[in-house]
Amino acid sequence: MPGEFEYIAWLRSQTPADPRVLIGPGDDCAAISPPTRALLVTTDMLMDGTDFVLSEVGPRRAGRKAMAVNLSDIAAMAGTPTAAVVSVALPRGKEPLPAELYLGLREVADAFGVALVGGDTNSWNGPLVISVTALGEATARGPVRRNGARPGDWLFVTGPLGGSILGHHLDFTPRVREALLLHEAVKLRAMLDISDGLAADLNHICEESACGAVLVAEAIPISDTAQLLGCTSGKTPLQHALGDGEDFELVFAVSPQDGEKLLREPPIPGLAKIGECVESGLWLKERGVSTPLAPTGWVHSL
Amino acid sequence: MPGEFEYIAWLRSQTPADPRVLIGPGDDCAAISPPTRALLVTTDMLMDGTDFVLSEVGPRRAGRKAMAVNLSDIAAMAGTPTAAVVSVALPRGKEPLPAELYLGLREVADAFGVALVGGDTNSWNGPLVISVTALGEATARGPVRRNGARPGDWLFVTGPLGGSILGHHLDFTPRVREALLLHEAVKLRAMLDISDGLAADLNHICEESACGAVLVAEAIPISDTAQLLGCTSGKTPLQHALGDGEDFELVFAVSPQDGEKLLREPPIPGLAKIGECVESGLWLKERGVSTPLAPTGWVHSL
Repeated sequence: MPGEFEYIAWLRSQTPADPRVLIGPGDDCAAISPPTRALLVTTDMLMDGTDFVLSEVGPRRAGRKAMAVNLSDIAAMAGTPTAAVVSVALPRGKEPLPAELYLGLREVADAFGVALVGGDTNSWNGPLVISVTALGEATARGPVRRNGARPGDWLFVTGPLGGSILGHHLDFTPRVREALLLHEAVKLRAMLDISDGLAADLNHICEESACGAVLVAEAIPISDTAQLLGCTSGKTPLQHALGDGEDFELVFAVSPQDGEKLLREPPIPGLAKIGECVESGLWLKERGVSTPLAPTGWVHSL
Repeated sequence: MPGEFEYIAWLRSQTPADPRVLIGPGDDCAAISPPTRALLVTTDMLMDGTDFVLSEVGPRRAGRKAMAVNLSDIAAMAGTPTAAVVSVALPRGKEPLPAELYLGLREVADAFGVALVGGDTNSWNGPLVISVTALGEATARGPVRRNGARPGDWLFVTGPLGGSILGHHLDFTPRVREALLLHEAVKLRAMLDISDGLAADLNHICEESACGAVLVAEAIPISDTAQLLGCTSGKTPLQHALGDGEDFELVFAVSPQDGEKLLREPPIPGLAKIGECVESGLWLKERGVSTPLAPTGWVHSL
C-alpha cells in the first residue's frame, strides 16, 4: 500500500463535509458538536480468522461487518449513531485492501448517516484487525438497557434467527431504524442485539434484570439458512435459531399492554412474540411442555 | 484466561462509580453525560512487535502506553480527556496478561481522571493488539489544531527530545496538564504531540498551516538518552532529537508577543523556544547557517 500519509490524504479527500463534524480526519483528534442527550459509546474489534475469513469474504465485506456490528450495539440501546473512528492493522503488501476496506466501512456508515471522523492506520505482518468505535446519542426516552425486564413481560424478536454463518453475519442490516421506531411506539424495558445467540443473549437480559424467561419453540422465527443448515449439521433448525450467534436481530422485553399494542399495530415488519419473562430460570416450551434451556441453546430433558 | 464473561464481570467490579458515567461496562454501549463543548475523539491501535515487544516490556507497560498515546492526542488539541473504551485481541493462554494489561490502562486513565467505560475483549492465536479510543472535551478556548501557524510565529517544545526507544516511549506522561496550562496562558495557534519525530511533526504543522519553519540547533533540548544513544548509534544526539519518534512532548506555535510572555512567565517547567515559522521550507540553523532539514530529521548540506 502507499505510505500512511498518502492513505490518510486519500481518506480525507473521501470524507464529505458534515455540519456536525467540527474537525475531521487528519488532526490529532476529531472534534464533533456535543450531543444534546446522553452520549453512547461502543467498540468492537474484528480479526481475520475469527470474525471473518479475509481470503473468502474480501476486505469490503469485512469492513461492512466491522461497522455494522458497532451500529448494531447502538441500535441495541435504541440510540441514533452519529460518528465512528476506525483503527486498523493491515497485512503488508495487499494493495487494494485499504481502499476496499474503507469503502465497506463507508457503505454502512453512509446508510445510517454516520460520519467517519478519524482513525489510526497501521501495517504489520499479522492478519487484518479492524477496531471500530461508534458514537451515538440517546433519544428523549433514554437509552434502553439490559436490566429492565420483569416477570410477566413479553419477549419479542425483530426477525428470523439461525444460520448466520452462511453469510448473514457479514451482510446484515443493523436494526437502528427498527429500534428507534419501536422505542417511539412503546416503552422498551430491556433490549440487546443477538450476537452470542438467542438463548445466550436472553440469558444476559435475565441475569441483568434478575428474572427468568420462557421461550415458545413454535413462535421462534427460524431463518431459511437455519432450515438449510439443519439438513446437514446434525442440529435441528430450532437449535440453530436458539444457539447460533451473530443474527444481529434485536430481542426485547415490553409490558403485556405494550406487547398487545405491538401485535395490533406493528411499527416494523418481521416482529415476533417469542415468549415471556418469568421469575427465574431459562426455559423452552415445546408443545406445551417446558424444559430447561441452556444459554448455549441446548435443551436439557428433565 | 477465564472466559470473556468472567473477565467482563471482573472489569465491572474494578470500575469505580463516576457521576459522568450513566452506563458503564457490561451493556451494549456505555452512556456518558454529554459534554458542554466540542467532543474530541481519537483512536490509536498498538501491536506487539510494532509498538512494544510484549516479551520484554510486559502487559502492564503495554497497557500504560496504549492509554498514554491516546491521551497525548487529546493533549495535542489542548483538550480535557474524559473517557475511554478499549478493545483487545489477547494471545491465548497467557493467564495474568488481561488483568495486568487492564491495570496498566487504568493506571494512566486514573492519573488523568479518565473513566474506562467499556470495551471489547477477544482472544486469538495472534500477537497482542490493543485499540483505545479516548474521548475528551475542548476548553472554552476551543481545540488547538495543526493549521493555525503563521510566518513569524515562535515555536516551542515542552521537553527534551530523542532516544525514547530506550524506555520513554513506554513510560512518558502525556502532556495533558501542560497543554491546558499553556492554552490558558496564551493563544496556541498550532500544536501537536511528537510521535513521528520533531522534524516530521513540525513538517505536518507547516503543511497544514501552509508555512515553513526554521529550527535553531543549539536551542533544541536534547534528552539524556539521546546523548547516550549518540555514543554508539552513529548519529549525533541532535539527529536523535530531530528524527526519533514517540517523544510525546508537544510542539506548538504562538505569536512573538505570546512567545515573549511564555519566556518571561513560563506556565510550566521545561519549555524551550526552538525556532520560528517562516514563509516556506523546513530549515535547521546551526551556528547561524541555515540548511534544508528533511522531515526524517536528516540535514542536507547545501
